[in-house]
Amino acid sequence: KKQYRIAVIPGDGIGKEVIPEGLRVLEAAAKKHGVSVHFDHFDFASWDYYEKHGEMMPEDWKAQIGKHDAIYFGAVGWPAKIPDHVSLWGSLIKFRREFDQYVNLRPVRLMPGVPSPLANRKPGDIDFWVVRENTEGEYSSVGGRMFPDTDREFVTQQTVMTRTGVDRILKFAFDLAQSRPKKHLTSATKSNGISITMPYWDERVEAMAKKYPRVKWDKYHIDILTANFVLHPDWFDVVVGSNLFGDILSDLGPACTGTIGIAPSGNINPEGNFPSVFEPVHGSAPDIAGQGIANPIGMIWSGAMMLEHLGEKQAAESIVGAIERTLGERTLRTRDLGGNADTVACGKAVAEMV
Amino acid sequence: KKQYRIAVIPGDGIGKEVIPEGLRVLEAAAKKHGVSVHFDHFDFASWDYYEKHGEMMPEDWKAQIGKHDAIYFGAVGWPAKIPDHVSLWGSLIKFRREFDQYVNLRPVRLMPGVPSPLANRKPGDIDFWVVRENTEGEYSSVGGRMFPDTDREFVTQQTVMTRTGVDRILKFAFDLAQSRPKKHLTSATKSNGISITMPYWDERVEAMAKKYPRVKWDKYHIDILTANFVLHPDWFDVVVGSNLFGDILSDLGPACTGTIGIAPSGNINPEGNFPSVFEPVHGSAPDIAGQGIANPIGMIWSGAMMLEHLGEKQAAESIVGAIERTLGERTLRTRDLGGNADTVACGKAVAEMV
Ligand SMILES: CC(C)[C@H](C(=O)O)[C@@H](O)C(=O)O
Ligand SMILES: CC(C)[C@H](C(=O)O)[C@@H](O)C(=O)O
Repeated sequence: KKQYRIAVIPGDGIGKEVIPEGLRVLEAAAKKHGVSVHFDHFDFASWDYYEKHGEMMPEDWKAQIGKHDAIYFGAVGWPAKIPDHVSLWGSLIKFRREFDQYVNLRPVRLMPGVPSPLANRKPGDIDFWVVRENTEGEYSSVGGRMFPDTDREFVTQQTVMTRTGVDRILKFAFDLAQSRPKKHLTSATKSNGISITMPYWDERVEAMAKKYPRVKWDKYHIDILTANFVLHPDWFDVVVGSNLFGDILSDLGPACTGTIGIAPSGNINPEGNFPSVFEPVHGSAPDIAGQGIANPIGMIWSGAMMLEHLGEKQAAESIVGAIERTLGERTLRTRDLGGNADTVACGKAVAEMV
Repeated sequence: KKQYRIAVIPGDGIGKEVIPEGLRVLEAAAKKHGVSVHFDHFDFASWDYYEKHGEMMPEDWKAQIGKHDAIYFGAVGWPAKIPDHVSLWGSLIKFRREFDQYVNLRPVRLMPGVPSPLANRKPGDIDFWVVRENTEGEYSSVGGRMFPDTDREFVTQQTVMTRTGVDRILKFAFDLAQSRPKKHLTSATKSNGISITMPYWDERVEAMAKKYPRVKWDKYHIDILTANFVLHPDWFDVVVGSNLFGDILSDLGPACTGTIGIAPSGNINPEGNFPSVFEPVHGSAPDIAGQGIANPIGMIWSGAMMLEHLGEKQAAESIVGAIERTLGERTLRTRDLGGNADTVACGKAVAEMV
């Protein structure tokens, strides 16, 4: 029987506090479902490591974690100590690019017991996936500045969309839509304003849709799409967008379901050529770091996504069920949800429910 | 006493239906406040005109409307009949560029009697402005495609930010913030992911902020900013963003206040070298066009913004007050707000309240 090898990287801030709870729940689920998991711990991709070594990761980072079955990642970044382009581009975004994790997958689901900021929405009303392109698009590094410090100064940055990059994320999204009961895909575009790359995106969506006759699809410009997340969150099933649009929609979606504190994400290389990274949507949260009060549910739910990705569906579902029961019973909740439980108490509660 | 000359362009779809109600209310307010307004009507910037002439506007369009004090604009576009890049880029976006309307200004205000999709928000809780850069940024036309129809195919499009373009929109936004009681400005960025243009934007914001010591300012990445529109709409006073970010925020904001059907906007050339365009945020809405059921309040409110821009503050305020009373009394409302009044009845009701 296969033993999964997981690389664990807590990173910065509350990443360090939520990782132990994520592991606690993963271990409980693994034990219950007879899944064998081995964890290797790494201290790089953090400010601490940078302070000691002057770089975010060792030179042989790929050798160290590139053969693991998955990476379980806390959070990285601490803008007051280290600029984002060093911390994020030196770790998280490096993983996405160099491990070709071209899918960023995030559920938007209203959980029992979590009050939505939207009026009159209950669990079941909001339940969809955001599929985000995770390697190219608006996050290119191509561009520059001219005539610095003069009145003629300007900067440019290119959005880059390749046929390979666009088609593979669309294929993933259509496959996902096809596997779901509603079989409905929504594409985020802005081809009425962004006149070269976005019409190309639309063109590829149309071409891909022809291969999925059973999937109903539509498209919205990103402006009205964000409006519809608020006005009609029940319209969506699978929403696919470029790197930037997916980024926006996968923060806005979780906000509509109450808090980004519990939202999980996967940075996935579907072919399995490289390890995928599973991390909560929230960041390192310097403002509450060190107090032990962070909500660990985003981290725990990311563990469920990781197990699902590894093919351990039952163990994954037992974690999601435990989260739903813990939240739904409303007896124990962290501060961000109006309670006063701390991180460890919340992790233990979920682990017991598994 | 000055007579204002206004160019009236109904455009397409419900633009044609809401314009007469907008004019009705403008006339009532002008009469009441002794403002003298003359309207000149134009049929271009519409599908009808395009069908007859093969182009969206006559060659001498600038001569025809370039000397007016303002342009009162309905809506343009009908994707099923004419591609957006012809209709929008041939009219609305042409105005923005060629009349140098570098400010797109939109209020986000929860009005009495309009139910917000957000739980527990009442009028007064949400009241801010979105200031959008309206000429450059992500809406550049620079880019192209290479290796078409092969596996190597790719497209690129540049985002372009000039010092002139960025500084003048920031100045407008800081001036506006400084004129308001809260004196609070929020900048939309994404410098952690869009690594060249967005750090430049941040840099210019910091430089401009130094000139406005009395304005408190902060910045959020666009992903979490959209989340905060839903979770904490009371945090904002003036929000400034690039062309794309402003576009998104000024649809999302009105959605959080209930409907984009009543939201107005100004495309403004603050120096007054060219006429500014005032138009509702909603589009031509082909799905309900011709039925006389569209909500005219976005158009009417745009008229108030136009009067304000012309310096007719009292007349402007009388229109906003009339809208608030009409909505607040809840006796007469259009279908989008759950009533069954038609466009004309709604326009008449507001005109009587002026
Ligand atoms: C129609 C479209 C090009 C336009 C824009 O994106 O600017 C619209 O959404 C707006 O906000 O005025
Ligand atoms: C931290 C940042 C670079 C990142 C992104 O924009 O991709 C984050 O917002 C995310 O969604 O994972």
